Amino acid sequence: MNKNQNSRKQELLQSTIQHIDIKQHNVVPMIDAMGSMAFQARNLSRGAQIFNKMQEDKECAVFLTLAGSLISAGLKGVIVDLIKNNMVDAIVSTGANIVDQDFFEALGFKHYVGTQYGIDDQELRELMIDRIYDTFIDEEDLRICDATIGEICESLEKRPYSSREFIREMGRYLAENDKYADYREDSIVYQCYKKGVPIFVPAFSDCSAGFGLVHHQWHNPDSHVSIDSAKDFLEITKVKLANPESGIFMIGGGVPKNFVQDIVVACDILDKEAPMHKYAVQITVADERDGALSGSTLKEACSWGKVDTVYEQMVWAEATIAMPLIAGYAYHKKSYEGRPERNFNKILDKKKLQHA
Amino acid sequence: MNKNQNSRKQELLQSTIQHIDIKQHNVVPMIDAMGSMAFQARNLSRGAQIFNKMQEDKECAVFLTLAGSLISAGLKGVIVDLIKNNMVDAIVSTGANIVDQDFFEALGFKHYVGTQYGIDDQELRELMIDRIYDTFIDEEDLRICDATIGEICESLEKRPYSSREFIREMGRYLAENDKYADYREDSIVYQCYKKGVPIFVPAFSDCSAGFGLVHHQWHNPDSHVSIDSAKDFLEITKVKLANPESGIFMIGGGVPKNFVQDIVVACDILDKEAPMHKYAVQITVADERDGALSGSTLKEACSWGKVDTVYEQMVWAEATIAMPLIAGYAYHKKSYEGRPERNFNKILDKKKLQHA
Amino acid sequence: MNKNQNSRKQELLQSTIQHIDIKQHNVVPMIDAMGSMAFQARNLSRGAQIFNKMQEDKECAVFLTLAGSLISAGLKGVIVDLIKNNMVDAIVSTGANIVDQDFFEALGFKHYVGTQYGIDDQELRELMIDRIYDTFIDEEDLRICDATIGEICESLEKRPYSSREFIREMGRYLAENDKYADYREDSIVYQCYKKGVPIFVPAFSDCSAGFGLVHHQWHNPDSHVSIDSAKDFLEITKVKLANPESGIFMIGGGVPKNFVQDIVVACDILDKEAPMHKYAVQITVADERDGALSGSTLKEACSWGKVDTVYEQMVWAEATIAMPLIAGYAYHKKSYEGRPERNFNKILDKKKLQHA
Amino acid sequence: MNKNQNSRKQELLQSTIQHIDIKQHNVVPMIDAMGSMAFQARNLSRGAQIFNKMQEDKECAVFLTLAGSLISAGLKGVIVDLIKNNMVDAIVSTGANIVDQDFFEALGFKHYVGTQYGIDDQELRELMIDRIYDTFIDEEDLRICDATIGEICESLEKRPYSSREFIREMGRYLAENDKYADYREDSIVYQCYKKGVPIFVPAFSDCSAGFGLVHHQWHNPDSHVSIDSAKDFLEITKVKLANPESGIFMIGGGVPKNFVQDIVVACDILDKEAPMHKYAVQITVADERDGALSGSTLKEACSWGKVDTVYEQMVWAEATIAMPLIAGYAYHKKSYEGRPERNFNKILDKKKLQHA
Repeated sequence: MNKNQNSRKQELLQSTIQHIDIKQHNVVPMIDAMGSMAFQARNLSRGAQIFNKMQEDKECAVFLTLAGSLISAGLKGVIVDLIKNNMVDAIVSTGANIVDQDFFEALGFKHYVGTQYGIDDQELRELMIDRIYDTFIDEEDLRICDATIGEICESLEKRPYSSREFIREMGRYLAENDKYADYREDSIVYQCYKKGVPIFVPAFSDCSAGFGLVHHQWHNPDSHVSIDSAKDFLEITKVKLANPESGIFMIGGGVPKNFVQDIVVACDILDKEAPMHKYAVQITVADERDGALSGSTLKEACSWGKVDTVYEQMVWAEATIAMPLIAGYAYHKKSYEGRPERNFNKILDKKKLQHA
Repeated sequence: MNKNQNSRKQELLQSTIQHIDIKQHNVVPMIDAMGSMAFQARNLSRGAQIFNKMQEDKECAVFLTLAGSLISAGLKGVIVDLIKNNMVDAIVSTGANIVDQDFFEALGFKHYVGTQYGIDDQELRELMIDRIYDTFIDEEDLRICDATIGEICESLEKRPYSSREFIREMGRYLAENDKYADYREDSIVYQCYKKGVPIFVPAFSDCSAGFGLVHHQWHNPDSHVSIDSAKDFLEITKVKLANPESGIFMIGGGVPKNFVQDIVVACDILDKEAPMHKYAVQITVADERDGALSGSTLKEACSWGKVDTVYEQMVWAEATIAMPLIAGYAYHKKSYEGRPERNFNKILDKKKLQHA
Repeated sequence: MNKNQNSRKQELLQSTIQHIDIKQHNVVPMIDAMGSMAFQARNLSRGAQIFNKMQEDKECAVFLTLAGSLISAGLKGVIVDLIKNNMVDAIVSTGANIVDQDFFEALGFKHYVGTQYGIDDQELRELMIDRIYDTFIDEEDLRICDATIGEICESLEKRPYSSREFIREMGRYLAENDKYADYREDSIVYQCYKKGVPIFVPAFSDCSAGFGLVHHQWHNPDSHVSIDSAKDFLEITKVKLANPESGIFMIGGGVPKNFVQDIVVACDILDKEAPMHKYAVQITVADERDGALSGSTLKEACSWGKVDTVYEQMVWAEATIAMPLIAGYAYHKKSYEGRPERNFNKILDKKKLQHA
Repeated sequence: MNKNQNSRKQELLQSTIQHIDIKQHNVVPMIDAMGSMAFQARNLSRGAQIFNKMQEDKECAVFLTLAGSLISAGLKGVIVDLIKNNMVDAIVSTGANIVDQDFFEALGFKHYVGTQYGIDDQELRELMIDRIYDTFIDEEDLRICDATIGEICESLEKRPYSSREFIREMGRYLAENDKYADYREDSIVYQCYKKGVPIFVPAFSDCSAGFGLVHHQWHNPDSHVSIDSAKDFLEITKVKLANPESGIFMIGGGVPKNFVQDIVVACDILDKEAPMHKYAVQITVADERDGALSGSTLKEACSWGKVDTVYEQMVWAEATIAMPLIAGYAYHKKSYEGRPERNFNKILDKKKLQHA
């Protein structure tokens, strides 16, 4: 890039995305009031109440699923607060949220306020600026993130890992490198590492991690780290077996939604008793009329034996607006008080020993 | 289930889904006429023309991505015809389409015309009928499909497999069991096996295959088949390196869309020259305004250096309507004539040797 | 505008929108095949079959409702063919379709193929080019259309008119001015004038007609033409009373959808017996989850006593794709043969006498 | 209805919709925080800031447009607070919001919390319960509302009225009947009557008012009240001429959105100078990709010369969630302080004299 390009790039990457802090905004009275309205205000309110019920139910393990570009959009703080307060016990996510966005920020990089208007994507390409709708990312930063994953690969014993195991190593990497001390406290990967909250990314190579892994396997054809997606599924099923009562809070649909619902059936396949998910809330803008999973109703999931229909709610809203409201409601109700730190990572490590 | 339930179940599972046959419907004049209209008719027409351009360009490898419940909805025949006529050279899909739906039908099972109205999903659950919007599936059949995957696992050498390798074994299983002779000819998995068309499922455990694999790994804790999702990414990158000029025809978004776009960047990470995808068509009902990948524009993908903007088209339509029209257009233009059978599976096997 | 602007304008307004001709495309076998698929292909097929049932039922008066920018998008020919073959007996529309677009083209003007990308709307404004998504209109032409409406106002007796009466005068204007002979044959307004098919535009001033009327009333403050929207409602109710059995084919939602459904209740208010609409098909991309009318289900309309639920179908698709398929299906089934020319305009004129 | 039906009806109509009170919820810090996020949170925040700018700009007349079922959904209180604090100066609405819902509640009737699940719309029909998605209405109450409109018609001088004039008579009716004293204070129609805020309903017969008017005209064929929709357009144009600087806050799209944008062009048609709308915010879930007006961008409206592009924002969210947040933001910023009571009704009455 020449000098003009550099200054143009600087001009475009000025203002950084700030993560919203639900602790500052007590939305309880407003969300309660919305419960006597109609349409999505009422659904949002009911969704918040069901998410709060999951917190009140101390037996209930809470699964959080993440799809879409949530971290780059300013929702990282919401998720970190849920983790810190034991409000979520396991996470299933797309790779972008965990690696390209959360781990990326933990390395000290930022997302930038951009725009979708009057922008030439060919120009952005030349400037090495990646666009997510109205947000900009410095591709040069992202390449460092890819390379860091490759570096972690090189440091590990060469064997199959579940994505959870690998992501825990990413957490360990952050913990052991004090140059990230200023950034890691706000990181999902790091906080989950500290609290023993498992993070599953069923399509782990479909993100920045994939670039690091491809680099690693290409240069180590004979013996290398591999990512065993079946092990992911086995491990998350073990979480369900370890804590049968469960609720799910789904942001978007996609693979994470399907994956976490399927564990009820997986228990059955293993001839183990496990109840359907007792609580389920999904924030989505997807439509049910294309028959795809992302917008499929939670009632439909009941026909599959995955989700019970007593406490389920679809909330048709975009996540950047709805997630702070629902999570903030439960946070300010303080029902998380008294919830145990479940540390499923510890349980999964033990289970492994049992089977070994 | 008691006798009443059995007869109720039979009553609900009467009429089977029939796959549409694009060979019977010459839509070329209609789609051409739509090119002089506006809105989605014009977009559909342009999308069809770009897909046809991919066929005319004999250097171009065509990637097909599949997300949503497409096979259960009657689109299997469309895809099989594309494969048979060398109109697609590699497939990236969600697991449900390939395992729960295509392989499932290859075993002799069917999907049923159902309804989303006046149905109690709790009752369906008790009858072991799974619902996909307006379609019914016999869960008892699906359990046999899960078990068949488990059986295939047991028969394989215990090592990490890419999903492609595993799916090829599924094809081999169909080829070697003549009891499926009546069903397998219409199967994507089987036809791809025969033609050497690789199928990648980056989140392979997120489907019926996952149930089989979990069963397998649970009962074989020490030594087992694993699914290496990083290997998937490496292999599909090798396809791009083997045939640099490429086009993508995307049905829905999700992981398959992201995965196939990322290979351009992966080549760069490996310091190999590879052009952006030259042609790109996506059929989707997703909206770009939530910033998620499924609805993100192909222009946005250009900022990431993944897709060129000369021949790209988003078609905002539901796939059951739009896919037969676009695929049918290209089929009846006969531009596939003279296209080589690329047999990327053979190339990937060789590459493996190179690295071993 | 200076010379450069003129040549830029000419450059942008080159290619004209062409109306699709359903007579050229026999879609019957394809639409029938879609009936055994799922999701919207099946809904589209069922919608086409119900619209065809309306044709077969010779007692049934067919109401067509039009919302959205349909004429400018290339659907005028579809509608004209329905009128010519007695396949619709009354039309309820937004003003833009009837005045700004159909009447506009009948005056000899055209819509142009445009684009939504890389266009500066401020520049378009300076060039007097109006944009509808990917379509361009010459604002200078539109001003002539506004003025023509004003001219018609001046020529009329000064009294309240229903929109139907006014639109019939627009048809008469076309019939009496042979300079429009080349264009009027393809016009909805003109063909309805000839066949006595009433056109109602309940928000008549909300379009180019409004500009003409405002000009007229401003310059004739004491005595002027007025548009009585209550009379519209009374007249369309009389149509229902004159022909109690009815079906509705709705393109989009909005005021036309509500208006035509309400006439069943209006009959009841007048203590007249009239059945609910027996057949109802709506093509829409609207969602039901905001509680608004456009996306509200036809089942919901049954709770209001407006639409029966035996033969009703929502088709979730964009109109430029779905309308030619549904209308084309019924056209090629030829069930319109033997349908009478109902000429409701004649009946409404008589009714007026009865009351006078 | 028999006794069983009556008790079933009572059971279904138990819980009433409660209107949210924005005065109780200071959302300013949260909405400001959302301004540094991405996607719709940022758009919502910017929309709120632009609506607040309209308040700060004391020269600016604020037009509020209402489409969708807003009053029945619990948004009446929001709108009444905007009126009381001079935060809106004119309203353009669909008929349902103003007559069937607001005036209806001013007569002492209520909307009920209902459900869209497990409900048989045929049963609702027999019980005379009307459904709006998840909300129930007693059709017997609605018939009284229809009849009240008919009664008002009978009491008026027989001449053409603009919808504004007629709605003002509805306000007067509430003011003069003390039996409504308990309900009318919370009514849009009544508060606008008191403050001189004009309400325009361009498709006035497309609602409960239509039923009353049809009854009136049917029984008074020779001399009757009529609703002149052209006069509506002329009057609202005069509002723009009286106060050229303007902003629009649009809830949903439809006829109200189009109508209020068109007045800029109408001024031009009358050879009067009037600037484009300076500020524009639209809350909508409509999509731009069908080319229809409801989802068309405000940038597109600039090509038509209707809306300036400096302060415009589309907010993609459902109104029950987004409207309290945007209106609440501006309310708690207190920028409405010092805004004059514009009383456009008084100005329109004077204008009338000028022309007479």
